[in-house]
Amino acid sequence: MSELHTALTEAGVRAVSDSDVIAAHSVDHARLVDPGRAAALVRARSTADVQAVLRVASELRVPVVPQGARTGLAGSATAVDAAILLDVSGMNEILSIDPVDRIAVCQPGVINADISRAAAEHGLRYAPDPGSWEISTIGGNIATAAGGMCCVKYGVTAEYVLGLEVVLASGEVMRCGRRTAKGVAGYDLARLFCGSEGTLGVITEATVKLSPVPAGRLTLAAVFDSTAAAGRAVTAIMAAGAQPSLLELIDDVHLKALEELRPMGLPTDAAALLLAAADGDPEAELVEIERLCAEAGAAEVFRATDETEADALMESRRSALHAMERLGTVLVDDVAVPRSRLAESLDRIRATAERHGVLIGVIAHAGDGNLHPNIVVDAGDEDSLAAGRAAFDEILQMALSMGGTVTGEHGVGMLKREWLEREVDPVNLAVQRRIKESLDPLGIMNPGKVLAG
Amino acid sequence: MSELHTALTEAGVRAVSDSDVIAAHSVDHARLVDPGRAAALVRARSTADVQAVLRVASELRVPVVPQGARTGLAGSATAVDAAILLDVSGMNEILSIDPVDRIAVCQPGVINADISRAAAEHGLRYAPDPGSWEISTIGGNIATAAGGMCCVKYGVTAEYVLGLEVVLASGEVMRCGRRTAKGVAGYDLARLFCGSEGTLGVITEATVKLSPVPAGRLTLAAVFDSTAAAGRAVTAIMAAGAQPSLLELIDDVHLKALEELRPMGLPTDAAALLLAAADGDPEAELVEIERLCAEAGAAEVFRATDETEADALMESRRSALHAMERLGTVLVDDVAVPRSRLAESLDRIRATAERHGVLIGVIAHAGDGNLHPNIVVDAGDEDSLAAGRAAFDEILQMALSMGGTVTGEHGVGMLKREWLEREVDPVNLAVQRRIKESLDPLGIMNPGKVLAG
Repeated sequence: MSELHTALTEAGVRAVSDSDVIAAHSVDHARLVDPGRAAALVRARSTADVQAVLRVASELRVPVVPQGARTGLAGSATAVDAAILLDVSGMNEILSIDPVDRIAVCQPGVINADISRAAAEHGLRYAPDPGSWEISTIGGNIATAAGGMCCVKYGVTAEYVLGLEVVLASGEVMRCGRRTAKGVAGYDLARLFCGSEGTLGVITEATVKLSPVPAGRLTLAAVFDSTAAAGRAVTAIMAAGAQPSLLELIDDVHLKALEELRPMGLPTDAAALLLAAADGDPEAELVEIERLCAEAGAAEVFRATDETEADALMESRRSALHAMERLGTVLVDDVAVPRSRLAESLDRIRATAERHGVLIGVIAHAGDGNLHPNIVVDAGDEDSLAAGRAAFDEILQMALSMGGTVTGEHGVGMLKREWLEREVDPVNLAVQRRIKESLDPLGIMNPGKVLAG
Repeated sequence: MSELHTALTEAGVRAVSDSDVIAAHSVDHARLVDPGRAAALVRARSTADVQAVLRVASELRVPVVPQGARTGLAGSATAVDAAILLDVSGMNEILSIDPVDRIAVCQPGVINADISRAAAEHGLRYAPDPGSWEISTIGGNIATAAGGMCCVKYGVTAEYVLGLEVVLASGEVMRCGRRTAKGVAGYDLARLFCGSEGTLGVITEATVKLSPVPAGRLTLAAVFDSTAAAGRAVTAIMAAGAQPSLLELIDDVHLKALEELRPMGLPTDAAALLLAAADGDPEAELVEIERLCAEAGAAEVFRATDETEADALMESRRSALHAMERLGTVLVDDVAVPRSRLAESLDRIRATAERHGVLIGVIAHAGDGNLHPNIVVDAGDEDSLAAGRAAFDEILQMALSMGGTVTGEHGVGMLKREWLEREVDPVNLAVQRRIKESLDPLGIMNPGKVLAG
């Protein structure tokens, strides 16, 4: 038995050393990153387990890669050489729900959608809804500061995290944040951990904000013959002060792929389909959004006649990536640009696709200016992969040139750490490194993620 | 001329050395803190001025106290010995407003309410509304992570800060955060600066989120004969999933003081008055809140018949502290407790007042469980001051014993730094210190604030 396994065993932790199991746990959903060879896998069942692992790791200077459901798209949970993979997905209990304080206290392995299901009896939900909500964990959602479709009205994960328990690299437990609605005592460490991608410590408990389930929702779909018209509609809706609870764009490439996956009458000859929903004063809001879409030049605007039809439209949006995956290996990109530049972004991405000879479809959280260009490549063909990678990078450069960001909601991970260095200024980067060093002086926490080694 | 003044002059910065002017700039609105003797006052007009001051301060190891309008209540802006007071209130331009991206880019000295006035032509506003909104600056609001009345529905300052330009202790300029709706590239440094109270750097520009001005608002007042009934009403409203845009409590002590200030027919024999407003589907929402107040045992519930009456009610809430100040020197406390424990808090604060023989009135952002016990003392009487201080501390202890916080929205400053050490665990405190050291290794940024020296 290796020194590491002996030390873990002595610390009371069971480590898996089967190389096949470790290999299966060494990747997340990111493409374009190469996993290292991990030394062990530990399935933590308690905060004490996590502490034991980090104490051993500190003692032996072994890297630790925290993992949840490994649904991330940037390689935050990808193995690095000689690491302990620390899987906390088995810590999956909802510890409490308080309907008056509107909070849920959860272990990190709780599945996102399970929180809303548990809160539903109180008329509450956990709002942030990443595409992976039925499979991703709250710990991973917080570690990556996940987004979702409701963000355009309801904000992002960081706005729903009140308090955390984390285990630091040293093995010490730290509680930060609060369980009250407000609180400003000291630096906002809970927020610092949002989006830190396991590089500052391991989240072992989270207190998250619940909010009332909207009473009703109406959904529409608007068909556009040009990206320019679709972009005009999004701009007009947001400039008019409308508050859609969802404003998603599906481009022509995805529309065709979706119809091929499962024919449902989507307009395959359109340039883009815009899905919008309203849940405040839905009727009045939807009338306004319909009007603005028509004014912007929509070829057709139709309402979902009932919840079944609304769900079908949403399902098509949620199936968009899956539909593309039938065409090849998909490199999922993720950028955010100023909302006003959505149409321009779509056109420039189209040009990028043509220039590199790859198929790129775009789905977008249009109301947030957050685009997911899905680049289809043949993973077995070096040239195709290289062309895809070049297109991927060109899109990141485009976002930066527009004053946007190289990641709207998927995170930096291993995938974009060099791009982080291009996005932020050198002073900012130096501060990030100093913060990392101050919390993890030995550099054992998920090294090589977010910040290049 | 002193070495400091010479160095500042050589750096191209005009420093005020008149001791009366410096003394006038040495305090904020906090009581119970003793200002130190500052050495100079600089009124910065640009980021370059701020950089020049911090370079000199680093060189000479002189403390710097950043200041805005000095309306803070915790002593964040209070002078420390030998410090340069760095007043950025003159940097007060709104640099841009973008109605599509729904952002405003502001210099730090812009008055909170001026942002909403400037955004109004686009149907937008800057939502966070601290009581000081007509006199406090956005830089100070961010530095203290200010709250307000709308938080119960619209959240706190930190949720409205997208990006910052800050000058670090070294004099280096750092940009952090973003101007897009979403973005997760690297650690969330912009959020780290929210509530850092000038201890990590000086905010020189802020990009804040604007949101649509609600279309309409309805307001009601509910009279309660007991704190228990008022507490039940708040609990019922929040547990029912209602979303009041405001839910404020005024206790009997304040009601009497307000009527003495300006008779307007407030129920001076009531135990508490609850003000509620709704701005989503106002009529339906207000009916529900009325019903819940009645069920909880309200003696009377009446609606504001028009905007004038609604404004008069709001004005009484906003005048509450002023009314108390006519009775003596007011020590303004600020705690947050779980919402469900509001009534218990009111009763325990009453007992605290009796035990220490001081007058305490409570106004509360009831929907957030955020209470402001206003303790009236005779500042010229040592015994009265000591009794007030003892009551002040007892209230902080009460909040901690309930799982609450020693500051809901006013911050730690000099006033509560020992209490921060009681609220957070030692590991958390050590991490806060390490973060402070990593950004300000010489310890010149607002020393003795937040973290005890």
